[in-house]
Amino acid sequence: MRNLARHTGILGICGALLLGSTAQLSAQSVLSKATRASESLEPALVHPQQAETAQQKLDALFRKTGKRPNIVWLVVDDMGYGDPGSYGGGGAIGAATPNMDRLAREGLKLTSAYSQPTCTPTRSALLTGRLPVRTGLTRPILAGDRITKNPWADEISLPKLLGEVGYATVLSGKWHVGAPEGMRPHDVGFDEFYGFYEAEKEISQGVDKRRYPDLVLNPERLAMLRKTGASDALVHGFKGGKTTDVVKIDSIETMAEGDRMTKEFSVAKIKELAAGNAPFFLEHSFMKVHADNFASKAFEGKSASKYAYKDDMVEVDAYVGEIVAALDEAGVLDNTFIFVTSDNGPQLDSWPDAGYTPFRGAKGSAWEGGVRVPGIAYWRGMINPGRESDDLFDLMDLFNTSLHFAGAADKIPTDRYIDGIDQTSFFIADDGQSNREKVYIWNESNLMAMRMYEYKIHVKVVEHKAQWLNIDMTTVSDVGLAPWLFNLYIDPKEEYPVGHRMNAWLASMAGELKGHAATFRKYPPKDIGLGR
Amino acid sequence: MRNLARHTGILGICGALLLGSTAQLSAQSVLSKATRASESLEPALVHPQQAETAQQKLDALFRKTGKRPNIVWLVVDDMGYGDPGSYGGGGAIGAATPNMDRLAREGLKLTSAYSQPTCTPTRSALLTGRLPVRTGLTRPILAGDRITKNPWADEISLPKLLGEVGYATVLSGKWHVGAPEGMRPHDVGFDEFYGFYEAEKEISQGVDKRRYPDLVLNPERLAMLRKTGASDALVHGFKGGKTTDVVKIDSIETMAEGDRMTKEFSVAKIKELAAGNAPFFLEHSFMKVHADNFASKAFEGKSASKYAYKDDMVEVDAYVGEIVAALDEAGVLDNTFIFVTSDNGPQLDSWPDAGYTPFRGAKGSAWEGGVRVPGIAYWRGMINPGRESDDLFDLMDLFNTSLHFAGAADKIPTDRYIDGIDQTSFFIADDGQSNREKVYIWNESNLMAMRMYEYKIHVKVVEHKAQWLNIDMTTVSDVGLAPWLFNLYIDPKEEYPVGHRMNAWLASMAGELKGHAATFRKYPPKDIGLGR
Repeated sequence: MRNLARHTGILGICGALLLGSTAQLSAQSVLSKATRASESLEPALVHPQQAETAQQKLDALFRKTGKRPNIVWLVVDDMGYGDPGSYGGGGAIGAATPNMDRLAREGLKLTSAYSQPTCTPTRSALLTGRLPVRTGLTRPILAGDRITKNPWADEISLPKLLGEVGYATVLSGKWHVGAPEGMRPHDVGFDEFYGFYEAEKEISQGVDKRRYPDLVLNPERLAMLRKTGASDALVHGFKGGKTTDVVKIDSIETMAEGDRMTKEFSVAKIKELAAGNAPFFLEHSFMKVHADNFASKAFEGKSASKYAYKDDMVEVDAYVGEIVAALDEAGVLDNTFIFVTSDNGPQLDSWPDAGYTPFRGAKGSAWEGGVRVPGIAYWRGMINPGRESDDLFDLMDLFNTSLHFAGAADKIPTDRYIDGIDQTSFFIADDGQSNREKVYIWNESNLMAMRMYEYKIHVKVVEHKAQWLNIDMTTVSDVGLAPWLFNLYIDPKEEYPVGHRMNAWLASMAGELKGHAATFRKYPPKDIGLGR
Repeated sequence: MRNLARHTGILGICGALLLGSTAQLSAQSVLSKATRASESLEPALVHPQQAETAQQKLDALFRKTGKRPNIVWLVVDDMGYGDPGSYGGGGAIGAATPNMDRLAREGLKLTSAYSQPTCTPTRSALLTGRLPVRTGLTRPILAGDRITKNPWADEISLPKLLGEVGYATVLSGKWHVGAPEGMRPHDVGFDEFYGFYEAEKEISQGVDKRRYPDLVLNPERLAMLRKTGASDALVHGFKGGKTTDVVKIDSIETMAEGDRMTKEFSVAKIKELAAGNAPFFLEHSFMKVHADNFASKAFEGKSASKYAYKDDMVEVDAYVGEIVAALDEAGVLDNTFIFVTSDNGPQLDSWPDAGYTPFRGAKGSAWEGGVRVPGIAYWRGMINPGRESDDLFDLMDLFNTSLHFAGAADKIPTDRYIDGIDQTSFFIADDGQSNREKVYIWNESNLMAMRMYEYKIHVKVVEHKAQWLNIDMTTVSDVGLAPWLFNLYIDPKEEYPVGHRMNAWLASMAGELKGHAATFRKYPPKDIGLGR
């Protein structure tokens, strides 16, 4: 975190705020209409009428079913904003996605939904409602990382809170927020975990001799890889109980079947849970379409493109359809909130094993390509079909919103800063507007940029030192005289800065960033050893 | 045309074909499945069953109505592929397009529809079914151009042919394929013309003192501009009859109302024509959203973005809705084929007065951004709703297809090369596939590229000599050792050439280009003085 003071030192003033003596939590603002309900909560836009409408709909459903709604998140790994058909891809880029497209058509399609720029940060933010810089999970955990402090030791996860109000909680698929004891899904709040600790690539590096001959064909190196603690199995674990290896991943063919296996688990689990008395929270988290993609047996060549990434998109989409069908067949679809998204932009460094974003940049950067992701909210009978909104949504908002759906909004922690915002009324009211005014974009421990209205201001930028590489050979630079300001309506690809020309906003936007930086005064960042 | 031999000299062989002695019209091909029905027709894919199905549907409708269908083209000027909501833009970029989106949803949305890279070439190709290099209309006609030969003297236009089989034919809006006598819409086949000879910018250059002070505030220069023959009026003309100035455009405020006026004309004309006995062909061709955009009175500030381009998108979309509604109210919607498109990619040189494409390049280039356009085919009861296809479509195909719809396929000229392909069965059969296998991309008299399947091969490329300028400071270069080959499924933005690595296709694709180049042997290009 050594850089925090410097990198939040926007125009030299935030640093002063952080280090100085004035405990000013809300900077004066001409731009903001948001209200801070308490000093530990991110300011939100207040829409009393839509909030009331939404609450009435939720209450009516609860009276009807007598049960809090189920919550199902379908998180695809590294899927690009442009990959689903409803977001401009699909058949047009050789991999049709009819199931996601149907959910988008019959639900609320978000066009300004934001993730963190990489995997672990997004996944932990979803479950804590907190920015990675606050939890310490600022970048993907990689084989060989030495974590000096268990970030979960003092974090409070969504499944933990949902469990306290009677929910059954299950993670099926990818975890990637820590494999050591104390950091595993069933250690931090989930009742049950069936899946993989790490990302697809971490596992395939031990078995794919064509891609990684220097590891796989060299026994000594392979032994070194195993010593880093890299996992190589699909595991099954229960809260407070045993953890077992279910399937050892000893070939790319086995790895290719990973999502089929977790899908089968989820479908069976849905049937079981729907028959019980407790509402449930299922995070179904795909291993695909993270590199390295391998087509599974049933889906090889099933895309028009035939590339493994594309076959895997078709597979993931089919499983989205099967999981929704399982909810329907179990009779609980009308009482289940479903959210489909990706954990970050496409990983273009691994091209052609990569997705598509129409935007600048990709996974690993603060450009739109890195953090703008598909976001589909579907709830039959509760979310009006055919809605589309470019209002701001941060995936962290799922934390607060899910708690509200569970009737447990009072469980939101008050002893720490919560960056998520309750978006219940945005989703549920027929013409609901977002309750979020700003999205802050961090990259590791650097505050990079902020989206507000259609504007995006960069105070640091990722520069590419090799064409097309968005992660593996880049630098992070301070901006020059003026922040880089873009108007995303007239410049969705962030090519034409309007910075100094639009100086109406420069100082005011910097003011908003100061307000954000000031939250770290009372609620300092956490270091778990992922810094450099 | 001095460059033709050179620039069609792909891998040095096409030139030999053109200049040599072998009259070889179809090069041997391992890639092509297309059939050349006659040496003057572009080879087409043959789908006998879908052709039969489509013909049965057309025949049934004809038996029911006793009238050939009306044909309505709605051509937006310089609209980007990404501008309509159904193509990834709309509300997400600050200008919702509910009317176009509805047509896309209830019709056939094409995701691989191609125009020419600029205006005049596309507009003339639409009406002749012929590549601009064959008609001589290889680039936009500009104020001051001296055309040495009337290209229309020996071209045969679609409205002329439709008129011969009893259609009423009307052009409402922009023409831009020649203002001198003999080149005007009502000289070349249209019964009636109500609109503008030139592009929006050509007219506003005489009235917009903020953008063009060196012209507008200098009386001498303004007089010089008038001497170039630049038009400054909305005109009304009838075949063989008088042409009158209806409204003189003497201010940007008047210019801003241009599309409202032509829309009012079209709506009234639809009512009139629908009540008559003849079927009709209406090309409604918007002046907007070509730069310079000025918001009209009723639409100023009506977009979320508020920029003139965006307000004008909202206006154009509203008029699309009004025109379709007029057809419905007149009781002819079920017997009218509607096609919505743009004449080329967005003109980014005029940014921020510019549209959006997710692709590389923009208007003026052979990159996808220059030539890939929205294409929506809508025909209530005849085109199955909810269809989407990435099969190839060239806007020139509208020539052949419209003649087929009119029961006049036998009118397609046989004494000249026709580059369009009949796409009747693609549109009308419920799961119709395209009859087009390749799209050739020319830029002025340069053969630049070819799309075939998901591959695109460039033999010449446009290089940008100033960032963001796609027209005003570029060069055309030959490619180096290997053509630039892209796989658009895995690389929609043409960033990662797979050229030599994918040498399976390099020679074969070059072979396809040779076959194309060979057509110029018997059917040579035409020079009308637009070369340099």
